[in-house]
Amino acid sequence: MFIEKINSPEDLKKMSIDECKELAEEIRFALLEKASLSGGHLASNLGIVDATIAIHYVFNSPVDKIVFDVSHQCYTHKILTGRRESFTDKDKYSDCNGYTNPDESEYDYFRVGHTATSISLACGLAKARDINGGKENIIAVIGDGSLSGGEALEGLNFGGSDIDGNLIIIFNDNQMSIAEDHGGMYKSFAELRVTNGKSENNFFKAFGYDYRFIKNGNNISELVTVLESIKDINHPVVVHICTVKGKGYAYAEMHKESTHWVRPFDLETGEERNPFNGERYDRIVRDHLIEKMKQDSKVVTMIAAVPDALNFTEKHRKIAGKQFVDVGIAEEHAISMAAGLAKNGCKPVFVTMSTFFQRTYDQISQELCINSASATLIVVNASVYAANDITHIGIFDIPMMSNIPNLVYLAPTNKQEYLSMLDWSIEQQEHPVAVRAPRNGVFYAKEAVDTDYTQLNKYKTVKKGEKIAVLALGDFFQMGEELIEAINKEFGIKATLINPRFITGIDEPLLKDLKENHNLVITLEDGVLDGGWGQKIASFFGPSDIKVINYGLKKEFLDRYNVKEVMERNHLRVDLIISDVSLIIAI
Amino acid sequence: MFIEKINSPEDLKKMSIDECKELAEEIRFALLEKASLSGGHLASNLGIVDATIAIHYVFNSPVDKIVFDVSHQCYTHKILTGRRESFTDKDKYSDCNGYTNPDESEYDYFRVGHTATSISLACGLAKARDINGGKENIIAVIGDGSLSGGEALEGLNFGGSDIDGNLIIIFNDNQMSIAEDHGGMYKSFAELRVTNGKSENNFFKAFGYDYRFIKNGNNISELVTVLESIKDINHPVVVHICTVKGKGYAYAEMHKESTHWVRPFDLETGEERNPFNGERYDRIVRDHLIEKMKQDSKVVTMIAAVPDALNFTEKHRKIAGKQFVDVGIAEEHAISMAAGLAKNGCKPVFVTMSTFFQRTYDQISQELCINSASATLIVVNASVYAANDITHIGIFDIPMMSNIPNLVYLAPTNKQEYLSMLDWSIEQQEHPVAVRAPRNGVFYAKEAVDTDYTQLNKYKTVKKGEKIAVLALGDFFQMGEELIEAINKEFGIKATLINPRFITGIDEPLLKDLKENHNLVITLEDGVLDGGWGQKIASFFGPSDIKVINYGLKKEFLDRYNVKEVMERNHLRVDLIISDVSLIIAI
Repeated sequence: MFIEKINSPEDLKKMSIDECKELAEEIRFALLEKASLSGGHLASNLGIVDATIAIHYVFNSPVDKIVFDVSHQCYTHKILTGRRESFTDKDKYSDCNGYTNPDESEYDYFRVGHTATSISLACGLAKARDINGGKENIIAVIGDGSLSGGEALEGLNFGGSDIDGNLIIIFNDNQMSIAEDHGGMYKSFAELRVTNGKSENNFFKAFGYDYRFIKNGNNISELVTVLESIKDINHPVVVHICTVKGKGYAYAEMHKESTHWVRPFDLETGEERNPFNGERYDRIVRDHLIEKMKQDSKVVTMIAAVPDALNFTEKHRKIAGKQFVDVGIAEEHAISMAAGLAKNGCKPVFVTMSTFFQRTYDQISQELCINSASATLIVVNASVYAANDITHIGIFDIPMMSNIPNLVYLAPTNKQEYLSMLDWSIEQQEHPVAVRAPRNGVFYAKEAVDTDYTQLNKYKTVKKGEKIAVLALGDFFQMGEELIEAINKEFGIKATLINPRFITGIDEPLLKDLKENHNLVITLEDGVLDGGWGQKIASFFGPSDIKVINYGLKKEFLDRYNVKEVMERNHLRVDLIISDVSLIIAI
Repeated sequence: MFIEKINSPEDLKKMSIDECKELAEEIRFALLEKASLSGGHLASNLGIVDATIAIHYVFNSPVDKIVFDVSHQCYTHKILTGRRESFTDKDKYSDCNGYTNPDESEYDYFRVGHTATSISLACGLAKARDINGGKENIIAVIGDGSLSGGEALEGLNFGGSDIDGNLIIIFNDNQMSIAEDHGGMYKSFAELRVTNGKSENNFFKAFGYDYRFIKNGNNISELVTVLESIKDINHPVVVHICTVKGKGYAYAEMHKESTHWVRPFDLETGEERNPFNGERYDRIVRDHLIEKMKQDSKVVTMIAAVPDALNFTEKHRKIAGKQFVDVGIAEEHAISMAAGLAKNGCKPVFVTMSTFFQRTYDQISQELCINSASATLIVVNASVYAANDITHIGIFDIPMMSNIPNLVYLAPTNKQEYLSMLDWSIEQQEHPVAVRAPRNGVFYAKEAVDTDYTQLNKYKTVKKGEKIAVLALGDFFQMGEELIEAINKEFGIKATLINPRFITGIDEPLLKDLKENHNLVITLEDGVLDGGWGQKIASFFGPSDIKVINYGLKKEFLDRYNVKEVMERNHLRVDLIISDVSLIIAI
């Protein structure tokens, strides 16, 4: 086994090319075994095993600096840079996370998880190198999917003229984003592939780059030859390598989209081991939208390269036809395009993850809110219960989005309310409306839900009580239900329970009414407290005698966290809240 | 005079091309006269007079839909679409704002003021047209500077393949951004200009577009001929027109950068009528940074196409040399590049306007904060006293930025403190640090300011008092000083005055201490209250007996507002605050 001998790239450099090829197979085996047992990014990593070996074979990392875009393809890099055991030893599988991480290794420069940043980061490293008087190679590795992201194109443009010396962009063209690619540039890449890189129509030369083409980007010999020829080059160059996503695992080569990221699966069949067969909001909402689109040709569902946000598989995309738009990794474009659709009579619904909405603050503010463009945004994975990698946590959307004027941000608490809010949003033409998908499981309404949300910031009193009012937002509503029962049990107080529904404002008349027979208000929200919704309530009651306790998450970056621990630390547990309340009541 | 006869594009269509040429001269005269008296975007508008006439001559707006990028070049469009009097009648100069505005006219589709959105908006209009079964032309007008913005490139990519029918992009190449262009694409545009559009290296074809070239984009005949040939075209096309920025006004043609946007000036000399010669923070900080860069080669000042943010004129950029980086209109790239610079040992300082930081939420969070990259951000125009166009107001940065973990956002209250915070930020290597430039004039420190801000969230008690504490943030600190005097005068209470300095957190020990001998806390901040800094204080005191009143701005889009009125409406005046306090104290 060669893999066992690799503790750093130095060990790799001692090997022959043929030995490297065997090593590649061993790495693929390790990647497959780990993914089949514990999940992760699979197809993207299988495709770039050979190129990663070639890069480390030729360049002298960590002096030469490699930046992986998204870094969801960095597993081989980790294996080659002292972290192989977390891929070969089951007990150490969780020693490394799934992205580059400077805390793990000096071979990693950045924690990265969002797309399209590698060229800009590399430009910064290169500019600093020139100021420092260094000579090292700066290498960005970026996929064809990622190149549709605006920041990647900004970086490509800047690097093509404003970096004086060496800048190497390895363009990993596997003809796939997570799903298929979208946009005119992909026609140019196809031309380059067909002409062996010789087409006069060269996207990269149009940005000012020197250019090399490698037809078989899974062939280590070919890769090493070309990379050696451009090592220490004194100007910006793009090395266009054509690779096969999922390379070496037949099921992945056949199912590139579903194996981009996998849950534990059976290696023989490729099928997921323990598929979740219960009710899930992604599927419920997808089917709801498909039905709506059938009935109304003006409804357009939009995504930005993550169909998984609503489980919109190829089959479902086909059903939706022209009413389904995947803009590629281009969230800014998506929001502005939605504004254009809305202003020309359509009913756009754009769906993505909370963490990816972070790309669109300006467009939500300018194109949607200033223009009152009636687009619907569905914000998924906006919860402490969702993705838990530091780069993908979804607990910051409330402060980010809810303080933009004219946006209506809704927090449904159950299935009927979620769909009802969506229906209302899609039909109304006054506001951009965002809906925050619950993440605590599918709950059913206990009584009929409202169908009209035109009267903004109107909270709903679910139970009228006294002394203590619990305002429980979105998917923390069920915690609110438990809390008022516990308050009753503990203090004999029949507390008021309120479903706020609106994140973007406070219901002043209702809050004023609370003053009459309440002296404590408790707010619960599934997101960071700072800048969030509950603090607006605290501010409202600030000049009064009513006391307010805001519950939510501390402003901090969490990483691969245990939900229970985080909840406990933030007192987000009924018994802990009861203790806090005891102290207040005692005074 | 032809201009007097133009009430809509219909009137234009009755004219001969030669008459149109005369009309162009009349429009230029009107633009010059208005700009010389009341300021505005000058050079960008002078350059595109002829093309705008040609576009309206050929197309049938408002059925055909024209989207102007940034829309700072839309004056001729306004003149031709029923709004000429606000350019020819001095009394009506302020009837129209400086950007497209659907409230003014059915010929305008969007309120736009930020760059790089036109193609995406046009894609939305075009997609809706196809769904609606319409046949109209959809036209985006975008300048060469704007094309460096990531969203423009995302839109260009999408439009190049995923719009089925007509999409016309008029690429107005005047070889200038606000300052000079930056990036590899500009080499390609130069090649196209030199070869009369015939170069095989064609940036737009690389994105999948059909292409037309117009050498003299200030020649109406040539423009009309080409536009007529592509009217109703059934696929995406770019019309590359070469224009002269400032065309027809010698001073502007010679001084393209300084006449991009002007204050009232003398038409004969081109010189500003009433230049401000007092102390200004932009110049103070520019000179401070130039001095720092001289002393330390690792300090790098970065801008994104707006040198005016720190009055970095060509002369000053030359002095800074390689330590000054203009990335073009590419804020996302700027932030990630700053992260790269910081991680490779440099000391980047990126400066732009509050409203343009809105493009960078994700990069601040991911590349800077998650990576603890020690870049310095200077946030200018972040104030109710700054830009007052709806698209450029700077009062939203506190909720947007201050709730991102690991960012240190500082609010200086005077010159010494501002420079001291900058110095500290540039030298420290722990955090990304943003500094909010004051906008209420240059004040001097009354006592020595701290030079070390390592101990985060440490507020400074400026005056120790009792009963009432005034926490006055940033450039509202001077209002705080006035307020404690008024409190003393009105109530005979010696109030405590605190300079919080840190926007990104609260000083819990200090706030706890306040509980001992205070019962009312007043917070003042120059930004929207919702999601801001004061609400964190209200939340902290929520469970206690201390009362809190938060002063700041209501969450709303303001437009061409009167500062005094807005301040009054929000009770941001010492006498109004005193009245509010009377009510609280009386209880």
